[in-house]
Amino acid sequence: MDEATTRRFGAVEAGGTKFVCAIGDETGAILAETRFPTTDPLTTLRNTIEFFRARHAEFGELAAIGVGAFGPIELDRESEQYGSVLHTPKPGWSGTDLLGPLACELGVPLGFDTDVTAAALAEHRWGAARDVSDLVYVTVGTGIGGGALVGGRPVHGLMHPEMGHLFPRRHALDVEFAGVCPFHGDCLEGLAAGPAIIARSGASLDRLAPESVQWEIEADYLGQLCANLVLMLSPQRIVLGGGVMNQERLYAPIRRRLHAWLGGYIGRPEVGGTIDGYVVAPGLGARAGILGALALALDAAPR
Amino acid sequence: MDEATTRRFGAVEAGGTKFVCAIGDETGAILAETRFPTTDPLTTLRNTIEFFRARHAEFGELAAIGVGAFGPIELDRESEQYGSVLHTPKPGWSGTDLLGPLACELGVPLGFDTDVTAAALAEHRWGAARDVSDLVYVTVGTGIGGGALVGGRPVHGLMHPEMGHLFPRRHALDVEFAGVCPFHGDCLEGLAAGPAIIARSGASLDRLAPESVQWEIEADYLGQLCANLVLMLSPQRIVLGGGVMNQERLYAPIRRRLHAWLGGYIGRPEVGGTIDGYVVAPGLGARAGILGALALALDAAPR
Repeated sequence: MDEATTRRFGAVEAGGTKFVCAIGDETGAILAETRFPTTDPLTTLRNTIEFFRARHAEFGELAAIGVGAFGPIELDRESEQYGSVLHTPKPGWSGTDLLGPLACELGVPLGFDTDVTAAALAEHRWGAARDVSDLVYVTVGTGIGGGALVGGRPVHGLMHPEMGHLFPRRHALDVEFAGVCPFHGDCLEGLAAGPAIIARSGASLDRLAPESVQWEIEADYLGQLCANLVLMLSPQRIVLGGGVMNQERLYAPIRRRLHAWLGGYIGRPEVGGTIDGYVVAPGLGARAGILGALALALDAAPR
Repeated sequence: MDEATTRRFGAVEAGGTKFVCAIGDETGAILAETRFPTTDPLTTLRNTIEFFRARHAEFGELAAIGVGAFGPIELDRESEQYGSVLHTPKPGWSGTDLLGPLACELGVPLGFDTDVTAAALAEHRWGAARDVSDLVYVTVGTGIGGGALVGGRPVHGLMHPEMGHLFPRRHALDVEFAGVCPFHGDCLEGLAAGPAIIARSGASLDRLAPESVQWEIEADYLGQLCANLVLMLSPQRIVLGGGVMNQERLYAPIRRRLHAWLGGYIGRPEVGGTIDGYVVAPGLGARAGILGALALALDAAPR
């Protein structure tokens, strides 16, 4: 048996609503998995540790555990807060040390990044972006967040990207809506995440008629995000996931709006509005999150 | 004598208005330099080749030549157009092969990137960003362009960033002005580059009273650009250069507007609006361009 494929890795998708814990291998196969709601930090981290402890007999020592977390988080290894959640609107979680308890109780190498950067790594390794090195993964769900890889490596810099809080130009048919972001009102998340759609129209997209103007407004804001990404980060692919993007009919108008916003300035066929392969759905679907955490573990394990 | 410091390198700052050609060494010292206007491609490239030929007797064989060029340019080494200017509004230059004639006539290794990415490399190596690995260099002059380094390496991806063509939200006191960008009208370049300031107010900033609202409008648009950069690319430093930024009093209000646009969401003191060291002037001043081309040569030379 090939030694490489018998190594086992832990994965924690630490979301604001639920935690997913799993054990997998280097091929991306998940061998065990559980999920539980994100309650207070103490209970949630105890549940996480118990999941791995309980499976030690079956899977043996893990080579590493990867944690993909809701942000903002501290990624600077020089910082005393490395591994912690920073100031977050989620009650009780600001300042929570995510990695410390896992390191102390489980004693294996830990990988750590944002949930969306982890998803980008998974899409790069196993999903819709295997053939490129520079990509962005954006989730559009209860919030909007994005992670970026440049040369195959995560973009961190000052902290990490927070793409959900861009300031798009308002759509001409959406000038009255104040937006729902507690920080900014009408930033992208405040205008185009799931709660914003419901606040503006009274329903989620799947309950609205295809001819509703809400579809056009949503596609315009997300197309504008994609245009901003092309201008700022120049990715070779943009992967759009999350609950709102389950509405597959959004992709085509988003591509058209991307093209329209660029105004012909970027002379690449990928942004011409008619190429399907540039703005794409996640190849891993809703599994990008937990597989992203697994990818972080693979990168954190000793060679 | 130390062999490393005796190697000589060529540098070409290929701008839309003028070309600067120089010979330098690994310390960033410039040993010879000339400049001439950018006319037609044939004449301009012939002048470039002649500069280096004429100095062969004095400096010997160059280890490499770096070319930092106005864009858009083809940076994909797999492309047949590698080394060329792509579709540009500058008459006669679309499709011009910049590297081919230099390679053929001078026969040394060539480095190639955008003028602004080259400037970012120079600021990283010798200037205002030596202590960080993730930075953005933006020039605000007759146009607006930006180059980014992530992990010390240039961001290319699909093509290269084109930050000048972002779509800022319009300032409340600037809703009538149509903007001057031939592609987009009121994109950032169309609203905040030198020609836009003159078109809106009838004068460049240095001729306007300090209490003119034009200062506030300019700082707001550039602060919005910086906020977008923090959200998308998360640089550890933003270097703002170019002719417009010779007005030093712009930096403080730009920092304040960056802070205001972020709305307290990014909990880092660097973006708190009062830290001088995050949004900074180029350490190399107007020399960032030619030293950037020299940095490209250093990276292109055999070890």
